[in-house]
Amino acid sequence: MRCIKCRKPANVEVRRHRSAFCAGCYPGWFRTQVERAVEDDRMFTRDEQVLVAISGGKDSLALWHALVKLGYRADGMYIRLGIGGYSRRSQEKSEAFAAKHGLALHQVDLEDAYGFAVPDLKDARGGKPCAACGTVKRYHFNKIAADLGYGVVATGHNLDDEAATLFGNVIHWQTDFLGRQGPVLESTHRKLVRKVKPLYKLAERDTAAYSIIERIDYILEECPMAKGAKSLEYKDLLNDLEEKEPGAKYRFLVGYLRQGRQAVAPGPPVDLRECSRCGQPTTGDLCAFCRLADRGRRKADAKAAKYRVT
Amino acid sequence: MRCIKCRKPANVEVRRHRSAFCAGCYPGWFRTQVERAVEDDRMFTRDEQVLVAISGGKDSLALWHALVKLGYRADGMYIRLGIGGYSRRSQEKSEAFAAKHGLALHQVDLEDAYGFAVPDLKDARGGKPCAACGTVKRYHFNKIAADLGYGVVATGHNLDDEAATLFGNVIHWQTDFLGRQGPVLESTHRKLVRKVKPLYKLAERDTAAYSIIERIDYILEECPMAKGAKSLEYKDLLNDLEEKEPGAKYRFLVGYLRQGRQAVAPGPPVDLRECSRCGQPTTGDLCAFCRLADRGRRKADAKAAKYRVT
Repeated sequence: MRCIKCRKPANVEVRRHRSAFCAGCYPGWFRTQVERAVEDDRMFTRDEQVLVAISGGKDSLALWHALVKLGYRADGMYIRLGIGGYSRRSQEKSEAFAAKHGLALHQVDLEDAYGFAVPDLKDARGGKPCAACGTVKRYHFNKIAADLGYGVVATGHNLDDEAATLFGNVIHWQTDFLGRQGPVLESTHRKLVRKVKPLYKLAERDTAAYSIIERIDYILEECPMAKGAKSLEYKDLLNDLEEKEPGAKYRFLVGYLRQGRQAVAPGPPVDLRECSRCGQPTTGDLCAFCRLADRGRRKADAKAAKYRVT
Repeated sequence: MRCIKCRKPANVEVRRHRSAFCAGCYPGWFRTQVERAVEDDRMFTRDEQVLVAISGGKDSLALWHALVKLGYRADGMYIRLGIGGYSRRSQEKSEAFAAKHGLALHQVDLEDAYGFAVPDLKDARGGKPCAACGTVKRYHFNKIAADLGYGVVATGHNLDDEAATLFGNVIHWQTDFLGRQGPVLESTHRKLVRKVKPLYKLAERDTAAYSIIERIDYILEECPMAKGAKSLEYKDLLNDLEEKEPGAKYRFLVGYLRQGRQAVAPGPPVDLRECSRCGQPTTGDLCAFCRLADRGRRKADAKAAKYRVT
């Protein structure tokens, strides 16, 4: 197999595009894909300040790297979630990347700010805190971006992530979520920042290849809290399908965005007001994060009481 | 595990219902499910004459058996598709079932009537004739039912069939098909008979268990033409999902019918007229079957010419 650009032996194959690239040509192709998504879906311009949500993994670091190389004004933001050694190591990777490239990385420490961490957010039956962790991240990316004057937050969600989310929403016919899934979530409130996903057409293995070739030092381990999560189950299933029908994931997601989404009648527009405690946009009186923080603090206090010397 | 009705040791487990039954109680449960689907979805009444599409397999024979036991007026119809030994054996099973229970079985022979058989319907690249075979069956079930005065055609499509079809339509976002998928297809033309699927909430293994317990002698082999068909691939995939999330198939299908289908905006109503050759309902000038029959006859003639002694 040879590089479709320079005919040298290829290092990376992109089956769904019937393409292959050598290590020299691949990063350029990858960045062109990112640039096209940003431009075609009108995510942001080179004049706008973009805040990139950084986890220390390959997707968010590859995104940040590509955006900066493409000349976009992208700063990073990392949330210290307090998931033991995993969080410490991913923070180190994120800080090292920012330092190496001379980039600004904003940080929030959950435990310092609120007195609890993500492991305290397991539900009553000890279930996974993944949904709660999603709320924590969405809340802070939005709040910090709005407070610091960024107009847009970019996340590293890739094709595999988006296809798995879509699959879960379809399998359970979550029509509310279905109507809202897309690579651009426009702001519908003055305190709500636009959210964009520039990697949504690139597969997990594409961002892995980019990170390896560009020598991006990312955290390899998966979050220990996510083991056995449904989203990983759906990814496996879609990988099986992809094996049998190359391009199936891409067609599933892009087909949805082109045809399915129009067909799914959008629900009534959501009426947003400001949380009575923190002022962030919410549909209720107290926002999802403030409710969750109350629970987190109770759990953290109970744990502290248990180990207190009396 | 014990029968939930009589507490005897159970023979059949229905995981998605968290139920189990002994061989004595199971057929009654199965028939109640069929009766409920027929009544809840207003498929037909005990006064109507129903034509059951018979293939000789477990689903269609179990359906016919259950309907007759429930007191519905159900006759059968078998189409001789000319798929070699498979078709001969399935015809024998169908005829033997009808004879054993003293039921009327109408038949059409494709080769006698038109001079071609299903294997002649492989596409130009020698691809599977499954889609064309579907057209042949739908055309004849409708035509014969209408000609003989039946108001409704019942097919043996089960939960696995329907979930796999839905999955294929969702994965490829076939929104036209999506909008039309359901257990009842109402007549929208005077020559179009209502189509119903009374087994749509019962799994493949439920109908297999019913057939075994009721000693229904059905054809075990799968159609040799269908090997490697996409629908079988989707069934495997959904079976994997079902293993991990029992009830997933049922929730996927029923969730679609309850929530998804409303959300998928129905396309404009299809304008039906009569085929200029055969008079059957169609959207075009010549109906899909008449076009397909032209192709089938050309193929069959070419084959005959090849073997003719000159």
